[in-house]
Amino acid sequence: MLIGRVVNSIWSTRKDESLVGAKLMIVQLLDTPEEGRGKIIVAVDMIGAGIGERVLITQGSSARRTAGFEDAPIDSVIVGIIDENQSEVSLR
Amino acid sequence: MLIGRVVNSIWSTRKDESLVGAKLMIVQLLDTPEEGRGKIIVAVDMIGAGIGERVLITQGSSARRTAGFEDAPIDSVIVGIIDENQSEVSLR
Amino acid sequence: MLIGRVVNSIWSTRKDESLVGAKLMIVQLLDTPEEGRGKIIVAVDMIGAGIGERVLITQGSSARRTAGFEDAPIDSVIVGIIDENQSEVSLR
Amino acid sequence: MLIGRVVNSIWSTRKDESLVGAKLMIVQLLDTPEEGRGKIIVAVDMIGAGIGERVLITQGSSARRTAGFEDAPIDSVIVGIIDENQSEVSLR
Amino acid sequence: MLIGRVVNSIWSTRKDESLVGAKLMIVQLLDTPEEGRGKIIVAVDMIGAGIGERVLITQGSSARRTAGFEDAPIDSVIVGIIDENQSEVSLR
Repeated sequence: MLIGRVVNSIWSTRKDESLVGAKLMIVQLLDTPEEGRGKIIVAVDMIGAGIGERVLITQGSSARRTAGFEDAPIDSVIVGIIDENQSEVSLR
Repeated sequence: MLIGRVVNSIWSTRKDESLVGAKLMIVQLLDTPEEGRGKIIVAVDMIGAGIGERVLITQGSSARRTAGFEDAPIDSVIVGIIDENQSEVSLR
Repeated sequence: MLIGRVVNSIWSTRKDESLVGAKLMIVQLLDTPEEGRGKIIVAVDMIGAGIGERVLITQGSSARRTAGFEDAPIDSVIVGIIDENQSEVSLR
Repeated sequence: MLIGRVVNSIWSTRKDESLVGAKLMIVQLLDTPEEGRGKIIVAVDMIGAGIGERVLITQGSSARRTAGFEDAPIDSVIVGIIDENQSEVSLR
Repeated sequence: MLIGRVVNSIWSTRKDESLVGAKLMIVQLLDTPEEGRGKIIVAVDMIGAGIGERVLITQGSSARRTAGFEDAPIDSVIVGIIDENQSEVSLR
């Protein structure tokens, strides 16, 4: 899995039927030793993460092992919110 | 998923049978903090995206969870068109 | 999928049984904005691509959705040859 | 698989049900020729690795081939601890 | 698939049961245009490759399509040894 920070919601009115009702969030990955260099992805949010929160992301076919998305064309999902008191340093 | 911008169509007369009739689009990914550094991929377009539009891309085996491509050798598909009013800044 | 250029054939006499008879080609990917920076991979060629031709590559488990390789340990396959008249510029 | 060094535990109280009870560890990958440039990931630990230990990581859908996680949304798992006497040089 | 050079064996006494008896090799990938910049991975060797030999690597779920590892948490396997007479130049 990867750690990321939720940057924003994303709006896509014209999309695959199976994504209708899915909460799609833009996340910047925190996976590089240098700050702010992580890639920007979009993940389905199943946990209720807010903008600015650090989240745990699962990618690939495993992302479809989430309730309701077994047959949907998704490849990234938020599977957890990282506890506030987990200091930034520990991620480096 | 990843965000990208449709750059062009791509023509491949000699191709795998299961791709005959598929609309193949060249997309530059918008997944890097620096502008214009994203990779160039080819995705099957199921939504009707036009050149210049920003799209949502699903990759890997999940790309095959799209109607008609369950058994096709594809690994990238356009699953949504990002709404016009979603400002560029919010993607950074 | 990714675009690449066929560089050479590759010979591997001692290999997994399921790859015996497979046409293996070395391909340089054309997926980076900067020329000549793409990675070098090996793909099974199902279409009959020649050295120097630009090809369409599918990777991951989807590569096994090609006739005869459903149970083979392969993760990259050539699924199309890009038409000659598709100008290089359009790939940037 | 990839080699990495365990950096810390990670705490995520609000997470997918199937991850409750899973031991989640932050790991920095040792996969680049240059020291300290490896990405930072989170893996489920099935072996009991401690902070500072070098571990063997499996990623992607294969990560789910571990007891109890067949249907969980995970994409990285620790599958081994590298013996102490394996010198650092041999990894370069 | 990717081309790599076998660097060393790797020893992991404490590991997932399904990996007991597997021959694990450290391989540096030869997939970048610049020499010596390739990532370092670990692959299960099914072919009997020796240190210094150039090998063909399959990654992802396809790695499990090798005899005896269908249900093991592995994501990289050596599926071939590249013939000696294949010149280095042809890989660039």
